[in-house]
Amino acid sequence: MSAAAEAPAVDARRVVGELRELQLLTGNERGAQRLAWADTWGAARKWMVDRLRRLPVEVATDAAGNRWATLRGERDDAVLIGSHLDSVPDGGWLDGALGLLGGLEVLRALAKRGSPPVTVRLVDWADEEGARFGYGCLGSSAAARTLDLADIEHLSDPDGNRLPDVLAGHGVDVSRMLEAAAELDGAAAYVELHIEQGPVLERLGIPLGVVLGTAGVERHTVSFCGQAAHAGSTPMEARRDALAAAARLVLSVRDPAREAGAVATVGRCTVEPGIVTAVPGRCEVTLDQRHLDAGVLADLLESTRRASEAIASSEGVEVAWSRLWGIEPVHFDADLVDLAEAAVRDVAGTCHRLPSGPLHDAAEVARAGVPTVMLFVQSLRGLSHTREEDTHPEHLELAVRALAGTVQRVIERVSVG
Amino acid sequence: MSAAAEAPAVDARRVVGELRELQLLTGNERGAQRLAWADTWGAARKWMVDRLRRLPVEVATDAAGNRWATLRGERDDAVLIGSHLDSVPDGGWLDGALGLLGGLEVLRALAKRGSPPVTVRLVDWADEEGARFGYGCLGSSAAARTLDLADIEHLSDPDGNRLPDVLAGHGVDVSRMLEAAAELDGAAAYVELHIEQGPVLERLGIPLGVVLGTAGVERHTVSFCGQAAHAGSTPMEARRDALAAAARLVLSVRDPAREAGAVATVGRCTVEPGIVTAVPGRCEVTLDQRHLDAGVLADLLESTRRASEAIASSEGVEVAWSRLWGIEPVHFDADLVDLAEAAVRDVAGTCHRLPSGPLHDAAEVARAGVPTVMLFVQSLRGLSHTREEDTHPEHLELAVRALAGTVQRVIERVSVG
Repeated sequence: MSAAAEAPAVDARRVVGELRELQLLTGNERGAQRLAWADTWGAARKWMVDRLRRLPVEVATDAAGNRWATLRGERDDAVLIGSHLDSVPDGGWLDGALGLLGGLEVLRALAKRGSPPVTVRLVDWADEEGARFGYGCLGSSAAARTLDLADIEHLSDPDGNRLPDVLAGHGVDVSRMLEAAAELDGAAAYVELHIEQGPVLERLGIPLGVVLGTAGVERHTVSFCGQAAHAGSTPMEARRDALAAAARLVLSVRDPAREAGAVATVGRCTVEPGIVTAVPGRCEVTLDQRHLDAGVLADLLESTRRASEAIASSEGVEVAWSRLWGIEPVHFDADLVDLAEAAVRDVAGTCHRLPSGPLHDAAEVARAGVPTVMLFVQSLRGLSHTREEDTHPEHLELAVRALAGTVQRVIERVSVG
Repeated sequence: MSAAAEAPAVDARRVVGELRELQLLTGNERGAQRLAWADTWGAARKWMVDRLRRLPVEVATDAAGNRWATLRGERDDAVLIGSHLDSVPDGGWLDGALGLLGGLEVLRALAKRGSPPVTVRLVDWADEEGARFGYGCLGSSAAARTLDLADIEHLSDPDGNRLPDVLAGHGVDVSRMLEAAAELDGAAAYVELHIEQGPVLERLGIPLGVVLGTAGVERHTVSFCGQAAHAGSTPMEARRDALAAAARLVLSVRDPAREAGAVATVGRCTVEPGIVTAVPGRCEVTLDQRHLDAGVLADLLESTRRASEAIASSEGVEVAWSRLWGIEPVHFDADLVDLAEAAVRDVAGTCHRLPSGPLHDAAEVARAGVPTVMLFVQSLRGLSHTREEDTHPEHLELAVRALAGTVQRVIERVSVG
């Protein structure tokens, strides 16, 4: 009997229908509106609980607001399936929801077969997007104890509402959030299905991929300081143009990133005095560099730093760096990656292994020491965080079947481990 | 008897003292505060009139708010000396004021000698800087009839005060401003002394220069439109980065400008969505190109336009141009340029001819058909429109003497012409 034959008998088409139903309930013409801690997010969670209640599972909310559905198995060791229901404002219908509704379907199919050999739990992480308070993976980082409460206690939304007050309104006491870590006791593995949110699988013509981990991120502000001057009276050779220096940096980060298989992005650029008739005296840009290998990322950052100094010197300006944020790369579990690839090949005949540039709840779980793997399904045109986000329905169905196959293989591995 | 020996016997050191006195009266620790139509500007003008009243001159204000002091000569043909008392907020002590106080000293010296062969008039142009309503050379363009009232009637300052109301408070009826043109009837020549506001003379080590004219200006917005995308999930080769395209444009305008002896400035750069984690989908920059030769300027603009299209094509983005403003080059009078150079060489032993990148009231007078010339005196570090604006006192004195020598030569030329 092959592993594929033993996979839970999911109704993948039903998942696509339920995703559309959820979008009708919690989205509008501008896209998904399941902003964490908002009423529509509550409505999405209630919709989910209504479906879970029909299954032989226990539903509970932890100290960080994460919602858990537990299908008790013959052993307490748990295989976790997770994702998030929250979206950015005007977001896509699949980001987060696919993984959770796919997990619901897998849970249904498992429950139909009776008690599994190990416990299986579906987790809906709270506030993955961080769209309201600017802090992502909030619930999963609490459970992973990678969250430092000092980083969030002072946060407010754009309307001035304080994070602790808003969370208290949902029964979450910030000072006790880290107690959610108890939920990971006994967790033997974590599986997450997500849309890719990038164009890699589409460009390869492959529906599904297995994620090797999440890239490390180096995020910096780079400021060039030259001399503001009159655009009419200052000859070209007498200028110390901060924007020209920044422009050279913008272009200089591209080839090294390409060659290293990394990404490097200058997303923000502000100029002072910023008027038509003045040579820019000051220009500040942000730089975001990502790679799955910490050494490659460090080398890339260092070479960019040196390049910025050479540029500044040749333009007669000064350069200063300020670190905004950073995170180490997170590598997923090699054995689980192999199992997931086998499941993907089983349903799609082909597979691609790729790193994830964006962060995911899975990375927090992995950082907590739980063996983790993620599946990606192709995103059309690589678009996400917009109502234009989409995936072919047949690829969504393959994704749900690959998730079921992966969970089955992981259950087997854990139950004999 | 040489022309220099006949120059009015100015007390150039007194001018430097009066400039400092005016700065004490109308400036503060942040710089000059003679914003046109403000109380401090009125105080500066009153200070000026107090001095003019001691001379045998008629003082009157025209329909555009320009103030004229007339020293009647044996003939009605008039040699005009002009500049402006208004400054930008937090401006420099010399910009405008040097030309007017220098002119005052020349008028004093001429009056001491009795009635000159031709009439000599000193004009204090109203609102050269345009710092409050965004429209520069207001009074001189009214006198030159190069002003289109439709361009100014709707203007308001940042506090919402309408230009027509503010000017009415100073006795100027906007609908009748162009009547100031009568002041240029009988004007045989116009001479203006100004600080360079650029670094050219300082870099050459030359105190004084004669201005060939004011550069033509082409001012445009260039917008690049690509595709906003996730900084983490979008590989380098799949990007359509609008900022990268703009960066290439910023760098591409420099060499052609250098080679043509022009200036080209990208002073403003805005990025959308403008966030650290997004590949820029849209980037808008402004381009300001200047040259004294209209043909060279047109060629430069055209080649930049073609370059922007090549850049857009190779970056997979779209480019659109929108003209913000432009003005033709204005050439000063060749004979007056020769006379001014002789006067400059007389006092400084050396001279440099240069175009002016910034616009000046002199350009409006020249556009009205009055033979015109300007003198520039060295600006330290090329700085202007800041309290750091400065010029060596000995250079200021040379400048006043060169102005006197130029006016003397022009009077002679007009009186025999």
